[in-house]
Amino acid sequence: MTTLINRQYYLAARPAGLPTSTDVPARDVPLFAPRPGEVILRNLYISLDPAIRGWMGDDPNYIEPIAIGDAVRSSVIGRVVQSNSPDFAVGDVAMSLGGWEAYTTAPAAALNRLDENSGIPLSCFLGVLGPTGLTAYFGLLEVGRPKAGETVLVSAAAGAVGSIVGQIAKMQGCRVVGIAGSDDKCAWLREELGFDAAINYRSCGDYEAAIRAACPDGVDVYFDNVGGDILEAALACLNKFARVAVCGWISTYNIADAPGPSARRLWQLVANSVTIQGFVVLDYIDRFPEGINQLAQWLMAGQLKYREDVVDGLDNILPTFLRLFDGSNQGKLVVRIPE
Amino acid sequence: MTTLINRQYYLAARPAGLPTSTDVPARDVPLFAPRPGEVILRNLYISLDPAIRGWMGDDPNYIEPIAIGDAVRSSVIGRVVQSNSPDFAVGDVAMSLGGWEAYTTAPAAALNRLDENSGIPLSCFLGVLGPTGLTAYFGLLEVGRPKAGETVLVSAAAGAVGSIVGQIAKMQGCRVVGIAGSDDKCAWLREELGFDAAINYRSCGDYEAAIRAACPDGVDVYFDNVGGDILEAALACLNKFARVAVCGWISTYNIADAPGPSARRLWQLVANSVTIQGFVVLDYIDRFPEGINQLAQWLMAGQLKYREDVVDGLDNILPTFLRLFDGSNQGKLVVRIPE
Repeated sequence: MTTLINRQYYLAARPAGLPTSTDVPARDVPLFAPRPGEVILRNLYISLDPAIRGWMGDDPNYIEPIAIGDAVRSSVIGRVVQSNSPDFAVGDVAMSLGGWEAYTTAPAAALNRLDENSGIPLSCFLGVLGPTGLTAYFGLLEVGRPKAGETVLVSAAAGAVGSIVGQIAKMQGCRVVGIAGSDDKCAWLREELGFDAAINYRSCGDYEAAIRAACPDGVDVYFDNVGGDILEAALACLNKFARVAVCGWISTYNIADAPGPSARRLWQLVANSVTIQGFVVLDYIDRFPEGINQLAQWLMAGQLKYREDVVDGLDNILPTFLRLFDGSNQGKLVVRIPE
Repeated sequence: MTTLINRQYYLAARPAGLPTSTDVPARDVPLFAPRPGEVILRNLYISLDPAIRGWMGDDPNYIEPIAIGDAVRSSVIGRVVQSNSPDFAVGDVAMSLGGWEAYTTAPAAALNRLDENSGIPLSCFLGVLGPTGLTAYFGLLEVGRPKAGETVLVSAAAGAVGSIVGQIAKMQGCRVVGIAGSDDKCAWLREELGFDAAINYRSCGDYEAAIRAACPDGVDVYFDNVGGDILEAALACLNKFARVAVCGWISTYNIADAPGPSARRLWQLVANSVTIQGFVVLDYIDRFPEGINQLAQWLMAGQLKYREDVVDGLDNILPTFLRLFDGSNQGKLVVRIPE
């Protein structure tokens, strides 16, 4: 058997600010044969998510930092090219925790088999039917706990998670307001996804005034993907017993000393008996089947729309990843490595 | 009937920093006869609580700010000296929302009658069996939600609320660690109240190291009365799914631009799926009877100890109030106006 060469983008240094090609260079390494119980996937899709930036640092986090010298960690979907497990045959397709690499070696027990003939595009299992959709589903319903008639505010609303959050909130009977970074994104939220209002944070001027105008009854649930000044403004608009679901704070990931919300704004905690709750999708791993089933039902019923931003070529992965931080991605960002 | 003169300490200006006698001067005003349904209390005890400082400002809060020109707002216990209600007779004793004043006029319907012959000192109804005790009870049990075996950390632990929080947490089977401002207070927490450990924040050096040393299994519940640097340090020590119950942030009340916790520390929200929840005791008003009943049972069984710091004389009220902010009070702070 020919030795395969695995191209990887690996963490050479922890980035200060936006990761550069010095922090995340490429290398070609030989791929060893799978050990007993392992399979090798030839990756077809690599998921790009803001959380990956957190794993590149060494601050305490919900999973271990990426070790220096390891491939950057991502969820991947690939086709089995070598198997040392009775559970997977060459040609099968599976999802795995993998890396920014052409091939991922993983224990068969850690793979999720996917059916490429289900009629659902494979990449959906990284997005709307994968960690992204489940983050939106559990984060909104279990942490945000919206009730019909309440107002739900979502930041990064045109992003992979935010766009699903808003649509689920609409299905709960809520008024839904999204914050996004362009008029096009705002139009998509209102016209395609059914958001009641959308705020372009790059042009709206005073954030707090814009949120108040779009949320005349105040905010009951704020699903926060961004942190920073938008969180600060949202805090000022919260109703009694409001819930802030903290999914992520993308505005802070490339700034070492980002400030938190001011004490004055955080006083909303007491002034309005507010709950601010962080979560990660893995908290709900026991309920993933329920979540995927519900998301798939909505998707097939046409109640859940999504947008993917697919970029071909592993060698484009770092500049593509950086688009998450300038907001130029349009929906779920994925790198595809065509077969 | 002789016209009574009511001495009041009133809000002349919103304080910047610690309130001064210019912000809160005295005046003597005539006391009008009670209107139908009203009674006049001759105040015996006036409760001094950190929250009052918040009401002197005009930031959004859970109740209206004290209006400029009004007596400073406090809970009071007084004896009825005039009644225009069939529900109260002269000589009865009642608790009311009142002010820093010799006499409080209030609707009978808003008073809570107290039995001065119950064997329980009247002042307890402002403290351990009043808003203070109820704040500890509901804040710990409903917001902190401690489970047996967990570690509960309490700041301002020798204060009126914190000392009750710690004792209730012990009754829940928790390891309880208090933070207080003197060795005497720490000794009282450990030796009299049964805390497992106590940290003198004025002498411990690095807060985070001190908390880690006192909480070797991490912190599951942090009951926060202080905010600021101690909150920042406590955030670093939280366990997965920890709860932070925000009762108040006394370290920030006299600082206009107090910073909140840094984004880096607040990342614990996501890193450990933490919940930070603010509350006020009024959120649980429907359950006050349950809380008072339970607190009274514990008190009479000797399971709940408390300390009062009683200062005689209405004219001492402002300097006495300021003792809350230098930590020189020893337990629940009350001004008494002897009959």
